[in-house]
Amino acid sequence: MGVDRIPESGLAPATLVSRIVGEDECVIGADLGGTKIAAGAVDSRGAIILRHEATSPAADGERMVSTLMEMISSSADAARSEGFNVMAVGIGAAGFILHDDGILIESPNIAWSDVPLRRLAAEATSLPAFLDNDANAAAAGEHFAGVCQGVDDFVYLTLGTGIGGGIFINGKIYRGYRGTAAEPGHITIDPEGPLCGCGRKGCLEAMASGTALEREAARLAEENPGSLLLEMTGGDTELITGEMVSAAAERGDPAALGAFTYVASSLGLGIVNLMHLFDPEMVVLGGGVSRSGHLLMDELNKYVADHGIPALTEGTTIALSALGGDAGLVGAAAMAWEGIGGLA
Amino acid sequence: MGVDRIPESGLAPATLVSRIVGEDECVIGADLGGTKIAAGAVDSRGAIILRHEATSPAADGERMVSTLMEMISSSADAARSEGFNVMAVGIGAAGFILHDDGILIESPNIAWSDVPLRRLAAEATSLPAFLDNDANAAAAGEHFAGVCQGVDDFVYLTLGTGIGGGIFINGKIYRGYRGTAAEPGHITIDPEGPLCGCGRKGCLEAMASGTALEREAARLAEENPGSLLLEMTGGDTELITGEMVSAAAERGDPAALGAFTYVASSLGLGIVNLMHLFDPEMVVLGGGVSRSGHLLMDELNKYVADHGIPALTEGTTIALSALGGDAGLVGAAAMAWEGIGGLA
Repeated sequence: MGVDRIPESGLAPATLVSRIVGEDECVIGADLGGTKIAAGAVDSRGAIILRHEATSPAADGERMVSTLMEMISSSADAARSEGFNVMAVGIGAAGFILHDDGILIESPNIAWSDVPLRRLAAEATSLPAFLDNDANAAAAGEHFAGVCQGVDDFVYLTLGTGIGGGIFINGKIYRGYRGTAAEPGHITIDPEGPLCGCGRKGCLEAMASGTALEREAARLAEENPGSLLLEMTGGDTELITGEMVSAAAERGDPAALGAFTYVASSLGLGIVNLMHLFDPEMVVLGGGVSRSGHLLMDELNKYVADHGIPALTEGTTIALSALGGDAGLVGAAAMAWEGIGGLA
Repeated sequence: MGVDRIPESGLAPATLVSRIVGEDECVIGADLGGTKIAAGAVDSRGAIILRHEATSPAADGERMVSTLMEMISSSADAARSEGFNVMAVGIGAAGFILHDDGILIESPNIAWSDVPLRRLAAEATSLPAFLDNDANAAAAGEHFAGVCQGVDDFVYLTLGTGIGGGIFINGKIYRGYRGTAAEPGHITIDPEGPLCGCGRKGCLEAMASGTALEREAARLAEENPGSLLLEMTGGDTELITGEMVSAAAERGDPAALGAFTYVASSLGLGIVNLMHLFDPEMVVLGGGVSRSGHLLMDELNKYVADHGIPALTEGTTIALSALGGDAGLVGAAAMAWEGIGGLA
């Protein structure tokens, strides 16, 4: 979710978003990223009742924790003042998580480590609390109230600054033996490919993330002196953002379209590998890059049709996230509902 | 299991192999490959009580079926004559299987299609019968009585003419949404890699199978005029077999050692990808190439240590099959035991 950008908002009062008549129970979901924190109350059908957003004080780990706890508590108070019974808290956080222990080990771009977030949230609210990483949470959100409702075997990919993943098997998040499963951003798809943030070459993340889109667009713009991207950035290709590449591609700019083709075919290769291993019913794309889904989907579906083994890939649908930037918050709430046995 | 080669044996009488005092129940397991068929009786501890082997009449699908049924029936009769109560039949077959329907759709190198093997075996024996593909069966064998006893989350790779896979999650074979999961031989690890039998480039199978070992050895032998492999084949590198590459490598031949290094690093890349996705407790290597495991393992472990993300790979052991060529037969029996609820 790293490419999400919201206006600097501070800690604005929660806003009542929706209310279903007769619904009187809710949970609090919180989505923690390096850029923003979102928290809110979510009912048992996955509707966001009210929400808070704040800019992440990412450079200050203690303030991250206190901001998060304040947002969770004030969301709970606001929901209670609307007459809701608050049942539990779920947190989805960018970072490496020990799920069973409820501990966040570390996060890229956030100055904290070994934070017992689950216990802190339980203590702050006197409610049952649950913690998972942001990609697992977003996958849970799509399963609870998004494009994967009723789909129990799917792979969710979040295409942002990096690539995260959540894998559902038989209706449950798949965590593996130690809890570190589902890192599709770090499967190698080209041993001679570009360098990844993890220090290895040719990871899916290095070739199909928002960062890869921007890098490839910059490279192609430098080769195309007439590119709109040069006009947009005054010739400084380091200023190219994903939004600019989308906008230029919409206007038919060859460099921007070429960057989308590069990302779509890299992503296609990764997705074919995932289909050959997991045989999912659906592959779902979320995160910033997926907002330009229509620029990706034709190339992506063509790549999979051309390069997948038909018997292993033809039955799998590739879909775009239905919840977009809300998937993490709704999914954190889904984990809370599931944690207290409140989901069917 | 395609590189297994046994002497042309016809349908020899079953041989009593072992007998545990007090054990009076058994199942029949059968392992069907393009080269040989093995069938036998297996007790509830995974010991092979008696066994049959025959050369596969692979060019004649009807004779494949009749030979298999004859071997299953005579194994059951022989077990009964030793005083065993025969409980069920399990079949592991090379090919694409519809598990729930008990149907073999098609096999590479065997002239049959759409064979309802499960029903035919049940009718021939009046016993409950079960069918799965050979790699899933071999994985089940290692779990039942091999190196994965007590290990419930592992990836099994069979390194033969091709590469097959079986994935265990929570102690069960993972089949995916439609039943086509676990084809690690066909994940792309190098988009510019050598052509695979499936028509795509750079599949794991094209770079780490027995076939890849022979191809790479031939290429390197042609570049090394002093190679033992040229001596062994009278200079015709098309005659190079996996056994020759092993023998030459044991004697320090650089071309043969280079071929093992190539296979080990390709396999290492594939295994790192599998670790990053599945977080298994163990990765197990079976099939013909694994018989030269000591020639692979040092390079393989080094590759994984150098190229894996430590937090995602350090806890996973890479092990060699304990059952070797018997994994398929024992695993077919394990599926039969499990099918009738006879395994804890």
